[in-house]
Amino acid sequence: MNTFGTLFRVTDFGESHGPAIGGVIDGIPAGIAIDLDAVQTELDRRKPGQSLLTTQRKEADKIVVLSGIYEGRTLGTPIGFMIANNDQHSSDYENLRHVFRPGHADFTYAAKYGHRDHRGGGRASARETAVRVAAGAFARQVLAAHGITISARAAAIGGVDLLTAPQGTAEKLIEEAKFAGDTLGGIVACSVKGVPAGLGEPIFGKLQAMLASAMMSINAAHGFDYGDGFDMAARRGSEVIDNFIPDGNGGITTAANHSGGIQGGISNGAEITFRVAFKPIATMMRPVDTVDDCGQPATLQVRGRHDVCVVPRAVPVVEAMAAVTVLDALMLRQARRL
Amino acid sequence: MNTFGTLFRVTDFGESHGPAIGGVIDGIPAGIAIDLDAVQTELDRRKPGQSLLTTQRKEADKIVVLSGIYEGRTLGTPIGFMIANNDQHSSDYENLRHVFRPGHADFTYAAKYGHRDHRGGGRASARETAVRVAAGAFARQVLAAHGITISARAAAIGGVDLLTAPQGTAEKLIEEAKFAGDTLGGIVACSVKGVPAGLGEPIFGKLQAMLASAMMSINAAHGFDYGDGFDMAARRGSEVIDNFIPDGNGGITTAANHSGGIQGGISNGAEITFRVAFKPIATMMRPVDTVDDCGQPATLQVRGRHDVCVVPRAVPVVEAMAAVTVLDALMLRQARRL
Amino acid sequence: MNTFGTLFRVTDFGESHGPAIGGVIDGIPAGIAIDLDAVQTELDRRKPGQSLLTTQRKEADKIVVLSGIYEGRTLGTPIGFMIANNDQHSSDYENLRHVFRPGHADFTYAAKYGHRDHRGGGRASARETAVRVAAGAFARQVLAAHGITISARAAAIGGVDLLTAPQGTAEKLIEEAKFAGDTLGGIVACSVKGVPAGLGEPIFGKLQAMLASAMMSINAAHGFDYGDGFDMAARRGSEVIDNFIPDGNGGITTAANHSGGIQGGISNGAEITFRVAFKPIATMMRPVDTVDDCGQPATLQVRGRHDVCVVPRAVPVVEAMAAVTVLDALMLRQARRL
Amino acid sequence: MNTFGTLFRVTDFGESHGPAIGGVIDGIPAGIAIDLDAVQTELDRRKPGQSLLTTQRKEADKIVVLSGIYEGRTLGTPIGFMIANNDQHSSDYENLRHVFRPGHADFTYAAKYGHRDHRGGGRASARETAVRVAAGAFARQVLAAHGITISARAAAIGGVDLLTAPQGTAEKLIEEAKFAGDTLGGIVACSVKGVPAGLGEPIFGKLQAMLASAMMSINAAHGFDYGDGFDMAARRGSEVIDNFIPDGNGGITTAANHSGGIQGGISNGAEITFRVAFKPIATMMRPVDTVDDCGQPATLQVRGRHDVCVVPRAVPVVEAMAAVTVLDALMLRQARRL
Repeated sequence: MNTFGTLFRVTDFGESHGPAIGGVIDGIPAGIAIDLDAVQTELDRRKPGQSLLTTQRKEADKIVVLSGIYEGRTLGTPIGFMIANNDQHSSDYENLRHVFRPGHADFTYAAKYGHRDHRGGGRASARETAVRVAAGAFARQVLAAHGITISARAAAIGGVDLLTAPQGTAEKLIEEAKFAGDTLGGIVACSVKGVPAGLGEPIFGKLQAMLASAMMSINAAHGFDYGDGFDMAARRGSEVIDNFIPDGNGGITTAANHSGGIQGGISNGAEITFRVAFKPIATMMRPVDTVDDCGQPATLQVRGRHDVCVVPRAVPVVEAMAAVTVLDALMLRQARRL
Repeated sequence: MNTFGTLFRVTDFGESHGPAIGGVIDGIPAGIAIDLDAVQTELDRRKPGQSLLTTQRKEADKIVVLSGIYEGRTLGTPIGFMIANNDQHSSDYENLRHVFRPGHADFTYAAKYGHRDHRGGGRASARETAVRVAAGAFARQVLAAHGITISARAAAIGGVDLLTAPQGTAEKLIEEAKFAGDTLGGIVACSVKGVPAGLGEPIFGKLQAMLASAMMSINAAHGFDYGDGFDMAARRGSEVIDNFIPDGNGGITTAANHSGGIQGGISNGAEITFRVAFKPIATMMRPVDTVDDCGQPATLQVRGRHDVCVVPRAVPVVEAMAAVTVLDALMLRQARRL
Repeated sequence: MNTFGTLFRVTDFGESHGPAIGGVIDGIPAGIAIDLDAVQTELDRRKPGQSLLTTQRKEADKIVVLSGIYEGRTLGTPIGFMIANNDQHSSDYENLRHVFRPGHADFTYAAKYGHRDHRGGGRASARETAVRVAAGAFARQVLAAHGITISARAAAIGGVDLLTAPQGTAEKLIEEAKFAGDTLGGIVACSVKGVPAGLGEPIFGKLQAMLASAMMSINAAHGFDYGDGFDMAARRGSEVIDNFIPDGNGGITTAANHSGGIQGGISNGAEITFRVAFKPIATMMRPVDTVDDCGQPATLQVRGRHDVCVVPRAVPVVEAMAAVTVLDALMLRQARRL
Repeated sequence: MNTFGTLFRVTDFGESHGPAIGGVIDGIPAGIAIDLDAVQTELDRRKPGQSLLTTQRKEADKIVVLSGIYEGRTLGTPIGFMIANNDQHSSDYENLRHVFRPGHADFTYAAKYGHRDHRGGGRASARETAVRVAAGAFARQVLAAHGITISARAAAIGGVDLLTAPQGTAEKLIEEAKFAGDTLGGIVACSVKGVPAGLGEPIFGKLQAMLASAMMSINAAHGFDYGDGFDMAARRGSEVIDNFIPDGNGGITTAANHSGGIQGGISNGAEITFRVAFKPIATMMRPVDTVDDCGQPATLQVRGRHDVCVVPRAVPVVEAMAAVTVLDALMLRQARRL
């Protein structure tokens, strides 16, 4: 399915080398003043070609809003938008028409659909994440009006903890891998602040389940955890208990936050923290062994422009999906408050 | 929301100390011969009171099917079922009416709903997972007819890798923690075999996103990854590439399976592997500091019957949620094959 | 699908001659005081065997609530409930195992599912509507707290307008048809008062589309219209215009209500009016020509206990579906009001 | 909500005087050869400005496909498309910024959203139905490959039965009403042929409920019935029984078709027939009394270009919504056929 969310809903379309990508945002409250420049700024954060460390595909990634906003404010009707594809080098991909790149979706798309667009990864291209960033940028503006802010960062690349490493480490790691014709994985950490207690629908709609679904739907994501996450699996209960304490203002808070702001699937008012693990990019600048669509062995030498590590550009995508998810949860909570 | 799935849909109800828990399975194909004894066997695997290592609550957990099956075969109509609650010791929980247990859903349910059932955790009790196991047991019987099998196991408890540890290690770890009045986290690993290529809906319905949502909706789950998962984040692309090779039967397979059987959100025909991390159980047999529902400090000494580690009983729950998810994906694929 | 609604969701299960019918109500706000006697009273209105004019099947139709209510108030968790089937005379239907009754769902269920429960109409029995009435009874209690009331009545039977006919007409018509071994169709008219302006989601979720879907899902319903409905198709615009006027309290109302309280798919604050047309019951107490499941001609003489006209018992079903629909719309509106 | 369907899903955006309207079609099977000229032909049938009888707004209504089709065949990925708004005369509507037109959605949109686009009816404009026609045109091409065809026609205008009236009657009626500054309602009748038995999901997803929801979501629709519909309410069971008979080819059919091809919510293989009643267009070329958005009385003299009767242009819209609905039902049936 190409729609995400229950009440704040994002529908996403587009292939990497087709005329355009775009989406429809349904369910946004009416009367919200929208700063389209801020939406564009979010898209610019994700945009390719910004440094030597990212793919050199040059896309303006200029959003064109087709509906849903009138005189600067949301109408409450769907926001349709598109982002043109301009800098496709489709000929770079002609050799991939009949060959399956390892670690990519070429084979699985062929198995599922039969007919596929091999150019630039088609629908499976990470280019699609621009639509998520645009949708998230709208969601953020609604959330900001409710005091909710979202911030992600690169936490690790190639196994190196960036939180404790000296500045410049990430760039150095990526340059080295690029020189070696190799690629790197990494981890994005995200924090959501200002979320009131009570978001999340217990049982199947737990807030962590919604976030996990959102994050694991991002290209190259291979893992998700929240709070102390996988580390908690190795700990004793007495080590990771979040005792409740008075917050000093007549409310209740926790003395620690191993739970990552979510208990029983519902936000408890503390900072929400989670991590997303990304695999190394599958496209390497070295020959790889594979097969073609007749099942015959083939050797593949990729051309084209590719990232070495998905993490820097994934940061705004993680934030965007968090924004969309949290706003949907906020609206679901509101629906019960008749 | 208390419904999971798009085409194979499970709706779940019930509080731990109410009259019953139960569910409705909607969308199961018609004419499938159902072995109700096998469904009961799955419930028995999850049942409490089976050893000294698990809670001593004694529940028969006997499933009563109310509809959807006639003369031993599915009608294609909803299967309504219930499991009575018999061995509630509600008085054990009277002291929890106004006190929030740390690490539990008491506070967040109060924040979300105002009115709550404090007895035995109410709706947030892990007792609810019996409904998932029942639903999964039906799904497994459909999947088995299509050659798909699911198997999970305890992979780690308290940081100890059980795959390489001598037998009996798990029991020993749990006994030690129990003696110390403490609890343990752990990891469940799951494998799904026989899945054909082509399952999973790209973009937001990626197979890993559906599985992540399913797994992260289980009580106490704090992390999910698939294939090499979080380990992949620390690796180079050249180390984790799954080269395509002929499978010797005219088909295509991969030389390795770092991807865990999913590429671009779609199954590739290889074994699907994933892990779920569980936190240590929040209820410990020692006094803990907390607050009451007026925000006043309180000390809590839990009574009642509680597990020390969720992992042994989580194994069939993970399998069940995997079964429900994979069957839903299979039906979604089928819908396109007009 | 056996679930109705987006936020206030009713999931329905059960065959006429299985152990029980029942349902799950998901999404009800928490803390609502529930009068279970009032729920039972609604079920009693629909119950068979109440007069000589309706089927003599004797069912207590006693609702058993399994979850979601604690100390008299909703928990906000799903309300699971069941209604036992007690007075099945399954042997009355043995002759229908291999024969398709004209005008019934026997043939289409066989075509769709292959395997079917022929006893008493199985899943297609109007018995299923008891679940709707129960769900509607809960919804009504929430709506009543918001000043919204629903009232339906028999508007026509067998072509006779009951609104202008002398009292007792309906009973007389039904008795005559029963004596003739025949059956009658009719029309139920419904009014919803107290609905605030702003309910309904334009485009595909128009309030009349939601109501039409709800009503046309009731057994034997063959038509739906709202406001002046089909009559409007024969009128000029100048005859059916609802001019806006000041309501005398600083608000706005309409001088007439040809629109039935809905304009552009959204409630305008006026009384909502709609009608549902029901076909004559297909089961007649006279021999009918048909075929068996081998396609061979057969003559059918129905036994069993059957209504002559669905209208009297459909009245509470129409009200119930209206309640469920309007509450869902109210919650959808609320979700946007962050 | 602005999305229709479960598996074949149409998401619709756009205001009448915004930059564009458009939509996203999700769920279409892959590998289907698409004739885009045929899609455009359907749009041309609905297009304004084609005769003196319809609004003189001149729109090319040229569809631009942005994704989902590659080398002439569907990819199975979303088909994003847009239709530019070119011939808006927004100044014609400036006098409507603060005045509510009777019978229109102006007041209800203001009540629901607060902020609204008054120009040309904004989102509530019938211009939105072009998106439905485009989506339906894609669905029809899939259905045609399965032998399913859809055909609607004007059955009545202004109370005159067009099926028995001499040719030219419709035009004459419309001209007369136009000359009088008035408008007319009417009825569209639709037939779907070639539908196999087994489509429709019993209980809430009955085929007639899906069709009713689809049709009642069309602008100005005020009633829906199928088969003998409202007429059945006035009949006896013995008059409208559809006896089953052998079809002469080893199958089963019905001797009559009062049921309109649907029994128990499921198609029985016969022709599906239904009707949609449309109210007279609310915009008349004569002064009408109303109020402004301060609740003060106002007189409105509409300018702009408007239809007199919605029926001629509604015919392709009804067909389109039928196509979308039937294809969705076909895919839902297929999902169970593992």
